[in-house]
Formats: sequence, structure tokens, C-alpha cells
Amino acid sequence: MSSRRNFLQKLSFSALAIPSFYTFNTGDKEANAQPFDTQPYDGPVLRVALMGLGSYANRVAEAMKDCKMAKLVGVVSGTPSKIPVWQKKYDIPDKNCYNYENFDSIKDNPDIDAVYVITPNSLHREGVIRTAKAGKHAICEKPMAVNAIEGQEMVDACKAANVKLLVGYRMHFEPKTLEIIKMRKAGEFGEIKFFQGLSGFIIGNPNQWRLDPVLAGGGSMMDIGVYSINGARYLVGEEPIWVTAQETKTDPVKFKEGVDETIQFQMGFPSGAVASCLSTYAMNNLDSFFLNGVNGFAELQPASGYGPIKGRTHKGELTHPHKTHQTIQMDEMAEIILNGKKPIVPVDGEEGVKDLKIIDAIYSAVKSGRKMELSL
Amino acid sequence: MSSRRNFLQKLSFSALAIPSFYTFNTGDKEANAQPFDTQPYDGPVLRVALMGLGSYANRVAEAMKDCKMAKLVGVVSGTPSKIPVWQKKYDIPDKNCYNYENFDSIKDNPDIDAVYVITPNSLHREGVIRTAKAGKHAICEKPMAVNAIEGQEMVDACKAANVKLLVGYRMHFEPKTLEIIKMRKAGEFGEIKFFQGLSGFIIGNPNQWRLDPVLAGGGSMMDIGVYSINGARYLVGEEPIWVTAQETKTDPVKFKEGVDETIQFQMGFPSGAVASCLSTYAMNNLDSFFLNGVNGFAELQPASGYGPIKGRTHKGELTHPHKTHQTIQMDEMAEIILNGKKPIVPVDGEEGVKDLKIIDAIYSAVKSGRKMELSL
Repeated sequence: MSSRRNFLQKLSFSALAIPSFYTFNTGDKEANAQPFDTQPYDGPVLRVALMGLGSYANRVAEAMKDCKMAKLVGVVSGTPSKIPVWQKKYDIPDKNCYNYENFDSIKDNPDIDAVYVITPNSLHREGVIRTAKAGKHAICEKPMAVNAIEGQEMVDACKAANVKLLVGYRMHFEPKTLEIIKMRKAGEFGEIKFFQGLSGFIIGNPNQWRLDPVLAGGGSMMDIGVYSINGARYLVGEEPIWVTAQETKTDPVKFKEGVDETIQFQMGFPSGAVASCLSTYAMNNLDSFFLNGVNGFAELQPASGYGPIKGRTHKGELTHPHKTHQTIQMDEMAEIILNGKKPIVPVDGEEGVKDLKIIDAIYSAVKSGRKMELSL
Repeated sequence: MSSRRNFLQKLSFSALAIPSFYTFNTGDKEANAQPFDTQPYDGPVLRVALMGLGSYANRVAEAMKDCKMAKLVGVVSGTPSKIPVWQKKYDIPDKNCYNYENFDSIKDNPDIDAVYVITPNSLHREGVIRTAKAGKHAICEKPMAVNAIEGQEMVDACKAANVKLLVGYRMHFEPKTLEIIKMRKAGEFGEIKFFQGLSGFIIGNPNQWRLDPVLAGGGSMMDIGVYSINGARYLVGEEPIWVTAQETKTDPVKFKEGVDETIQFQMGFPSGAVASCLSTYAMNNLDSFFLNGVNGFAELQPASGYGPIKGRTHKGELTHPHKTHQTIQMDEMAEIILNGKKPIVPVDGEEGVKDLKIIDAIYSAVKSGRKMELSL
């Protein structure tokens, strides 16, 4: 198991004796996970193929077993040996199996509605654009692309093909997160003044694609820092107008040129609220959000792991039961694609491009050492 | 009561229903405070005069009632009406009462060993230098001065006069803080990677000296941000080699030119550890430190209020009983001055100058928008 999976699944100090605000619950404890709905359902179902059969695709496939409105029906992989394993495990017919050579012929397959692109970051663009050209809806893992220009190309391609483009923002459907957003919209925190996001873990295997600058398009910021960026936006409820950023690299062998190890970054919002964030591949178990308003506060820790998410506000503990994030996400995305449902926090391509514009600005701020103005 | 006193004393959300990591204990709950020692003591005692009889001097005077080795014996004030009130309350003889006109004659008073300067920041320099010239030891509230040059002048004056100069770093004697420092020195956290300090409150009365740029020498950074600066240094155990900083001002009427409302600042250390800090006069109840190493963590919240301080590490809750900080501080300072005791974390003038050099660099970084290198 890669240490990233280990991070997002386990998120616990091995030696930890007490539950702690700054440590994490085990993500594997899904004993209280509940199926999305227990009512029989015979409405429309979004039939999904997964592109890129790595560890996260596995997690999505398992989660989709409990979906009501989304069903795994196909796979796309460049590794021939994986196909029969997946076919057997998820009962996938031969005609719904693709490699990257024959993938474009998916346009003639009436039994697949959407492709969920879960490849390394730099391959998202091609995966999504080919999906769009095949007339299928695209779901793309975050970060949506390696920069905002590529992200915008993907948005444009999906628009041109008249298909939907959604980004895998599973936290946008997470109940405790949504409760805090609801409270903020209701003014329960008063004027929002401060967001703090800490996102990091110690990355393991130095040969994984996440440490390859070409495949990853960056380092910790692309993979884990994006949670703090996105979290700042959905919790503060504004778009940042400036960023500053400082990079620290202690291991230039493991973290090659173009792969950031640790970046501290700050954002300012039109209201005067500010955000202090940390993105790192070199620190133990950081996954917390804190929102401070003049009348109250909210905190999430873990804030973006696979759950259960823990959260509280000045009013008390958030007790919404845990549901597997990817199950909720895929059912909600089916509602969006099939029924035009409007999510509380957007998950469309435009939302993904905003995060990429901020990432671009953070990398520019690191290089220039200057504050970068933003207009999202 | 000023809102600053209210902050440092109460540190609680009024509406708070649950104990929370991001909120605070009431500092007035000192029911479990214990006298420093219950043994009878007849050794040497440091005889102290307080200069500047504001609210913090009151707090120090009350705390000194429980001191073993330090005794309040004199006062210095520019407000004649305060003198008799203090004389009566603390049994202070006429001959130990001074104003700023006759203060220098304290050199002829054999019954006073030290003067604790608790005036507004910009008056510290003069108070300490006059104290030194009178041949008395000086204790100076933090921030020691309004910039490092003045701080160094104070150090030099005390050296020339062969008197001690100590800065009122009460947290340097706080038991939970010292336990974390001890654990860090023993390697229990492994390599230190990250410090986070949040220091802030919503300041009240706009006419107080803390919002006067001339008397305060700055804004929130001088008053409350200095806790995060100092905390980063004693918890990380290194001196920063760079700082970056970003100022945000939402209320230019309340926070005049030269008075910072909110500053985010970052520091880098020789080991590669980094610090993310916030100093503010415009946000509710921020007082937390977090130290993250590769093998463990520590957190303090409240971290620098008047207590009780709350803390825990990856090994569990810190349960050291609360003692009034100023009582411990004044007894320990008596030990330092009278017996040459070496404190675990320095409280001398050189320590104060280091914090001022960092504050100078933070203000420079705000102005220039650039990273400032430091050599402490």
C-alpha cells in the first residue's frame, strides 16, 4: 500500500493513546457507513466506466456497489492484466472493456453514459477530451489538470461536445462539511475572518507517479494542498483575490525539480478574511480545517480524509453519520448528470479551473516571491 | 475592563456549550492555583518596585502576594491619585513611592533591588535605562521595546551599569510549556517539521494606548503576535533564518497608520522546519500553538493566556497543575537575579532583542512584500 493510501485511509498516529484533535480517525472504520438509501429504486441509472485502474479506482468501484443511481459498467486501462481481474470482480462484459488504443470507439457503445478519469494528473486532460469527443459525460479526479489552461481546454471540449464535466470533489457532498456551509450561509459564525487549512502527510515510495513532475504536474500542492485551497473557498464562501506562498524543500532527491515538498500559502478574500494554509509531503498527518467568524467557529479534523470526518462548531459536535464519500459522490453526480440537480457546492469543470488558477498563482508566487493578484 | 484584559482573562466564547480545542478556558478559574511553596522561607528576597500602575501591574501585584522570593515594596507612577491606593493595598511606605520626576533618586534607596517596567511599550526603553543608571536590576514587560535597536540600547545600558535585565516572558516558566520543551529536547517528537501559532483577539476601546502607534510602537504584532514568535522559537528550539509576512487591514479608522490589525507571518528554520503564524486584533479568541514532528506532536490551547494553559501531546494530556504565571515568574526571576539560576528558556535582554529583530523583519517583509533573511 502506498503511503498516500495509508494516509488517507488510516490517518492515525501509530503510537497514539488518546483521541486527539490533531490526529485522525482510521478511515477503515466504516462500520457505521450506511447505504445511500434502502428504498428499492428502479429509476434511471448512470452507467460509468472507470479510466485508470489504480488504487483510487478500486476505492471508487467498491463504493459504487452501494450506489442507487450510478453503476460501474466498464473499464479503461493500459495494463491488459488488470482487465480480467476487474471484469470478474465487478461483472463487466467484454464489450465494455477498453485500452487507450481502442478507447475512442466507446462512442459507439450505447451502454456507457460516463467515463470517470482516475489516471495520473497530467493524463486527465487527454482522458477527458477523448471522453467528450466520444459523446460521453466526463467525471475527472482532482486536480482536474496540471494547470488552468489545460483545465479550460477540458471545459471547452465538454461544452463543444454537449456533455457534462464534473470534478471528483467528494467533500462537496460530505454532510458535516455541508452543515458548516449551511451555518455560514445562515450567518451563524458572523463575519468570517480566518480560515486555516493544514493538508499533508509523509509520502512513501519515491518511485510513484505522484513524485514524477511530468505525471503529477507538481508535488504536494496538486495532490493534497488542493484540499486546503478548495476547503478555503467553500468554507469562507468567497473567491480569493490574492495569494502569497513560500516553498521549503529539505529533500531534493526525493522531491525533484518541479515537485514541491512543502508550501505554506496564504490567501486574501474580498471581505478582508484571510487564509493560512500548509501543503506538504514531508509532515505527519495534517488534515484540518478551521473557520473563525466574529460570532463562532467551525473545525473539521480530519477534514478531507476518506472519513469518518470529525467536526464541531461553537454550538457543539457535528454528529451526522458517516457515509462512504465516493458512494454519495457518485449518486449525487448521477443526479446532476441525469436529472440536472444543482449541488450545494459546484463540482463542475469551472470549479476545477478556479482551483487550478489558484495553484498556478501559488506556484508563481513561490517563484517570484511576490504576492499574486487573482480574479476568479 | 479593556477587551484585551477580557481576552487574556476570559478567553471563552460566551455562547460556548462544549469545551473546544479552538476556544479557551476562563483564566479566572484559579481555584486549583497553588502557592509556589508551602515551606517557611527565610532566605533572600528580591524587593521589587512596579513602574506603570495599569491593569497588568495590578495582576502582577496580586500574583506577587504568593511569591516566596519576590516582594512588592515600591511603586512608580505618573498618576498621583494611584499612589495612596496602592500604598494602602500593598502596605508600601512613602519612601518607596516615586513619580517620573523623582524616579532617578531611587538609586539612593537601599530597600529596592529591582524595578519591573510595565508601562506602554514605547516607554520601556527609558524606564529600563533609568532603572539601570540608578543601579537597580530591571525587569521589563514584553515586547521589551518598539524595535531591536532600542532593545539593544537597553541591554547595553544594563551591562554598563552591571545590573540584570530580564523580560517578562511568563510562559518561559509555565509547566506544560516546559514539559513540551523537555520532550522535544529528548527527541520524543522526532525531527521537528512545523509550528503553528495563532494569537489574536478583538480589541475593544479604540482610545487605549495599544492602538496608539507612538505608545504601542505597532499593533497586534507588538502585543499578541509576539507570543507566536516567541512560542515558535522555544517550541521549535531553533532561531528563524527567514520571515515572510502579509498584512490585512479592514478597519483603517480603528487601526491607524502604523498599527497593524492582522498579520500572517511565516518563518523558516535551519533544519527545514517552518512556522505559520497569525497575529490579529480583529478575530475572536485565537490562542493556540501546534508543534509537529515526524514522530509526534504537541498542542497548547490556550497557549499563552493567563491560564490555566491546556496542552497535550501524542502521548496524552498534560496534567501539570496550574499556578498563577506571574507568581512563578517573579519567584524564578528572583532566583535568577539573587542566585544566578539559569532558566530553561532564557528571559534576558538578549532574548528580548531576538524577538524584536523578528518583529522588525516582519514589519519590513510587510512593507517590501519580500522574504527577509535573518541572522539571530
